[in-house]
Parts: sequence; C-alpha cells; structure tokens
Amino acid sequence: MEVVSENRNFGGRQIVAKHPSEACGCDMTFAVYLPPQAEERAVPVLWYLSGLTCTHENAMTKGGLQEHAARHGLAIVYPDTSPRGETVANDEAYDLGQGAGFYVNASCDPWKPNFQMYDYVTTELRGLVERTFPVNERHGITGHSMGGHGALTIAIRNPDRYQSLTAFAPITNPTRSDWGRKQLSAYLGDDETAWAKYDATLLIEEHGWKGDILIDQGASDQFLNLLMPESFSAAMARRRQPGQFRMQRGYDHSYYFVSTFAGDHVAWHAERLT
Amino acid sequence: MEVVSENRNFGGRQIVAKHPSEACGCDMTFAVYLPPQAEERAVPVLWYLSGLTCTHENAMTKGGLQEHAARHGLAIVYPDTSPRGETVANDEAYDLGQGAGFYVNASCDPWKPNFQMYDYVTTELRGLVERTFPVNERHGITGHSMGGHGALTIAIRNPDRYQSLTAFAPITNPTRSDWGRKQLSAYLGDDETAWAKYDATLLIEEHGWKGDILIDQGASDQFLNLLMPESFSAAMARRRQPGQFRMQRGYDHSYYFVSTFAGDHVAWHAERLT
Repeated sequence: MEVVSENRNFGGRQIVAKHPSEACGCDMTFAVYLPPQAEERAVPVLWYLSGLTCTHENAMTKGGLQEHAARHGLAIVYPDTSPRGETVANDEAYDLGQGAGFYVNASCDPWKPNFQMYDYVTTELRGLVERTFPVNERHGITGHSMGGHGALTIAIRNPDRYQSLTAFAPITNPTRSDWGRKQLSAYLGDDETAWAKYDATLLIEEHGWKGDILIDQGASDQFLNLLMPESFSAAMARRRQPGQFRMQRGYDHSYYFVSTFAGDHVAWHAERLT
Repeated sequence: MEVVSENRNFGGRQIVAKHPSEACGCDMTFAVYLPPQAEERAVPVLWYLSGLTCTHENAMTKGGLQEHAARHGLAIVYPDTSPRGETVANDEAYDLGQGAGFYVNASCDPWKPNFQMYDYVTTELRGLVERTFPVNERHGITGHSMGGHGALTIAIRNPDRYQSLTAFAPITNPTRSDWGRKQLSAYLGDDETAWAKYDATLLIEEHGWKGDILIDQGASDQFLNLLMPESFSAAMARRRQPGQFRMQRGYDHSYYFVSTFAGDHVAWHAERLT
C-alpha cells in the first residue's frame, strides 16, 4: 500500500492510499479518516460507499463526516466505486462500468475480470484496513445513492460483520428500476434470479436485519423515481423492521443533503459501535 | 441577478447567483448561504474571501462553514476571486489575473478595466446582497490565504463597515512576499507607496483595528514563507492589538485546515455580530 496524501483534519488524519487489488485486478485508491482517538487506541470503522460517477474523493471533500467522526472517535473508510484504468472494461454511459460498480461481483464478460466490488469492499479492503490502521472489529456501513444500495445489500447479507447500518437516498429496488436493471443485466446476465441478492428491498423482506436501520431521503430529490424509496419503506413496515425512514422536506440528491444529515448518521453509528 | 442554483442545506438555502457587475465590467458569480433563521428575520452576514485559483465554489463545497452558520444564524457570502471571461485580461500564471484578483482596485492596464475587486466586494456586491437577501447591517469578514489578505486589508480600512474579523492562513505582508510584489506591481504599478494600503501588516501597524482579531495558521503549511505570518503576528504584538494568533501544529494550507477551524471562526463572528 502506498500513501498518496495525508492531511491533518479535525485533530486526526485524512489519508488517501493506493494498493494493488487482487479482487479487482487493478490498482485501487481509497481514503481513510483516522480520528484523534486512533492515536491512543483501536477505533471502530464506518464505511461510506459513494454513488454513481464518484471516486473515493467526493464524500471525503464534500460529505462533512470527519468533524463528527472526530467527536465520536470513529474511523471512516471511503472506497472507490469501481475498478479503474485503461485495461479495465468501461462504457460510455455514466451509469455503467467505471464509476458505477454497483457493489456486485460481476459474472459476465467483459466485466467479470475486474468488477468484483462486493468482494473488494467486504473482504479485501476490509482486511487491508484492519491490518494497516488502528481499528477494531466493530464496523458500521452507510452510503449515498448507489452507495446506499451497496450499504444496505452488504449489511443485510453480512449481519455478523456489520453492527450498524444507515443510508442516504439509497437505490432500494434495483431489480425494478432503470438504475439497476441495465447494470444487473450487464454484470450478472439476464437470469433475474441472480439479481435478488443485490436488491435491498427483496433482501430485507426475506431476511430483515438484526439492528435498527436509519434511512434519510430528500423529498425534492430529482431521482426519486429511480431510487424508489417507497419500495424499501413499505418492505421495512411489512417486515416490522426496527428503524427510521425519514423523508426530509426540501432536500435534493446532492452533497448538500448528505452533509446536512451526516452528523445524525455518524452519531447513530457511534452509538451502536462504541 | 439570476439564480444559478439553489440547494437546501442544514435547514437553510445554499444559493449560487450571477449578476452583471459594474465595478468589474463583466458578469460575476457568487454564492450565498442563508441559515434557517433568515426565514423569520434579517440575519448578520459573514463574508468569506477565497484564495488563489478559487472561485465562489471551493469554500462553499469544502469549507464546511454552513453547518455552523445554521446553528448561529449567520448568512455567508462567498464572492469569486476575480473578474472572469474571454474579454477580461488574464495571465498564464496561476497567481496573476483571473482567479487572482488580490482584492485590489487595479490602476494599470490591462487590468484596470475589470480588476476592481476591492470596490466590488466592499460596495457593489455588498449593496446587492443587502437589497436582495434578508440580512441586516452587521457584517463580519474572513478569508483564506489571498482571501485572508483581502479580509484583513478590507476590514482594517473600513472599521465602520465590519464588526468582526478573522483569517485562515492569510497572506499578511504582500509588499515583501513573492505572493504580492509581482501582483501589486502588475495591478498598481511600480510606485510602492501605492501598495501600502493593500498590506495587512503595514495597515495594522498604522491603524490597528477596533475589535479583536482571530488568525489561524497551520504550522505545516507548505506556503509559510510566502504567507509570512511572523510579520503580522509581530505587528499585532507591537501595536498591542487585541486578538489571537494561533499556530496550529500539523495543519497544512488545504481546506482540511479551513474546515477544521471553521466552527471556531463562525462562532467568533456570531458572538460579535448577534
């Protein structure tokens, strides 16, 4: 692993690093924020998965989570949203290929050799983070939009490995949305039964989740019809899933929405991780 | 004035707007954050002047001031750092011309027709903001790097118009620095007596300031030799100027430094403006 940059921030360290990824078959860049408490002891980790077109950098610079993480003593990991590079498959559309990994393990060419973001996030990068930084085994996960989809599906499928779960404006029902059907078809093929394990609404209906879940969604989000919050919110209610689904008046899909509720989400994770 | 974008943020409104500027002879873009309190009453204003290469956007997305402004009930105005456009003079260097107005009124060609940023910030944009938004007559000013230079020089020269003053890693002695001599010479000509009114160290030695001043400076700032914090800090001490000069261990020149201390600065202004 090679450190690309390090900046002091809120008494802690904002680090960007690069490493050769076996899962993705290319170099991957990620960011990690270590709060001041990490100088003294191992701290819990909050994973923040980003949305379409983002890299590790967007939420790191615009999400405003670090101030809250410093107060509560959480590390934050910001993975990239896909494998990248000239040798990695891509598509001209913003919502397929590089920048749009959807946190799945692709089984179809040309994506299969690199697009293994599910394994990358849950296993490879997690292992690297745990070996490299002063963190403990308590991990929470959140994300925005496509990253909210990643957070929900990953946590619901791995309840033993994540102790807290929230999401900002997540894609919740990709098997029924244009933000999902195209990508799941490309990455996994046309057999829709293979898609179900990457659909948060289907997963929560089948499995529920051990903890309570916090979802924030802007009521003026320009992508509401693609995110389909009603699917997940109905599934939570049908399942009697503990948690909160908050429809926030006036907020759109931008980082102005994410930063506004970043404090609530970090506090939510801190309460459950520390 | 034309609204370019508006996003809900921390219960308030993050607005970007464009207007034809008489002072600058071109269209100018600026941002204003209105806190939730502005729905009910006129609120005080904090001006944030940005540094070299920045537009209105950098601090708006990365500075993290809005959360604190929402808590304290302050509006924030983020002006651009220079006139812009194809008809506006420019230079290939990052530190002269567009993106590098240095908050002066240029008296030399080719800069004179457009580079009137001192008048633009102190008079024209202020008037527009006061006519357009629910703000009152209590204004504070801060800024980063070249913008810290702008904040210090503008407030010291206009104590009747600004009630509070802070700066992040300001250029403090441009008449003696490579961040200053080149630009003051280009914009104002070779007669150095004309430069003195744009040098915070010379101004504070001559005039002092009516209030107390807060300066934060990163001890690991990569531009310390150009900023010359020792000049202003010594001048404050010689003048017995009330205030605080804080040298912050480990911090560099980036927005990770600005965002870390944004809460302190906004609180400082709020205490003096509300």
